[in-house]
Amino acid sequence: MARHAFEEQLDVLHRSLMSMGTLVEEAIHKAIKSLVERDADLAQQVIEHDTMINELEHQIEIGCFRLIALQQPVGSDLRRLGTMLKLVTDLERMGDHAVAIARTTRRLMVEPYVKPLIDIPLMADHVKAMVRDCLNAYITRDKEAAREVALRDDAVDKLFSTIFRDLIDVMSSNKQSINQGTHLLFVAQYLERIADHVTNICEWIFYLNTGKMTDLNK
Amino acid sequence: MARHAFEEQLDVLHRSLMSMGTLVEEAIHKAIKSLVERDADLAQQVIEHDTMINELEHQIEIGCFRLIALQQPVGSDLRRLGTMLKLVTDLERMGDHAVAIARTTRRLMVEPYVKPLIDIPLMADHVKAMVRDCLNAYITRDKEAAREVALRDDAVDKLFSTIFRDLIDVMSSNKQSINQGTHLLFVAQYLERIADHVTNICEWIFYLNTGKMTDLNK
Repeated sequence: MARHAFEEQLDVLHRSLMSMGTLVEEAIHKAIKSLVERDADLAQQVIEHDTMINELEHQIEIGCFRLIALQQPVGSDLRRLGTMLKLVTDLERMGDHAVAIARTTRRLMVEPYVKPLIDIPLMADHVKAMVRDCLNAYITRDKEAAREVALRDDAVDKLFSTIFRDLIDVMSSNKQSINQGTHLLFVAQYLERIADHVTNICEWIFYLNTGKMTDLNK
Repeated sequence: MARHAFEEQLDVLHRSLMSMGTLVEEAIHKAIKSLVERDADLAQQVIEHDTMINELEHQIEIGCFRLIALQQPVGSDLRRLGTMLKLVTDLERMGDHAVAIARTTRRLMVEPYVKPLIDIPLMADHVKAMVRDCLNAYITRDKEAAREVALRDDAVDKLFSTIFRDLIDVMSSNKQSINQGTHLLFVAQYLERIADHVTNICEWIFYLNTGKMTDLNK
């Protein structure tokens, strides 16, 4: 396979990866929106669209393996394919977390919220921005941007702790809210997980640029 | 690189993967033991040993990439390396969940348990057996065994639902138990996640044998 053919194939995979990233961003956005606005239809959409994310993951994986087999790349070309293989795993898991949030929306439709959701959408805004910015850092192969994004995980962890404490307080003062409170705690945890996956991706952007794994946020 | 050299290198990676699997099994076992027996030292050990799991993951990943570059394998050889790259990701995440359980042990040291832990260790036994059996299915490349292991995820999901309901009941009847109850719910969820990772691995064993991805349990 000629050089330009390799680049072309890689470009196709790259575009699929970007589509996958966009779908994941949308899934997170819609899942949280469905939760805040109690929109069961939107939640259902998130659940159904996850198939597309999984499908893209498999397509990209198979595409990477095929390209490795045909082109037998070395050095930075191989790193680009290796990084892509790792990235799709993280993106797919983020999509699963969005689905878990959408399922929570449906579970919580039976009762009104004890109090309006404020910190969860705030945490989601942070996380969505991290997802977008890490995908941009990947496209531009900007390792300093990746490092900056990974550091933002601390703010997400802090928000998680705040939400945890607040929900425990709410549940303690009103035992009718315990079921709802625990489900909302899970939602906050899904968001925290998504941010962890972003950190993984940032570490892979580092690897892509330097050939070395770096612990960006532990 | 000659054929036998490739096989030798693959064998080295395989042995590292098996060590990683054993460490992960141990981490899950010790994390749950630390929780049940309220053993903060054991919990600390799980947290510290996670570095070895992460280290092995990176070693195996780099080893796979290096072998792909040197040997430029195709077909089933490439699938073996691709599968290994995916497996280590799942194993590493399982290790992270064990660490999260160990951290819970330390958080819950301050207060006695409201009731003895029974279903969580039972759920853990199921999950540990799934981890062990899926690694065996991988070694023997036995796709029927892999399918059987993946199906056992349903029993784990059922146990999770039981634990969820029971803990909500306990928290509702005793608000002093809310903090403890939510932490134990997270533990049950970590176990459920570990079982999901086992299902992923089972699907990769299928891919290894057939070249096709199959949804074994959705």
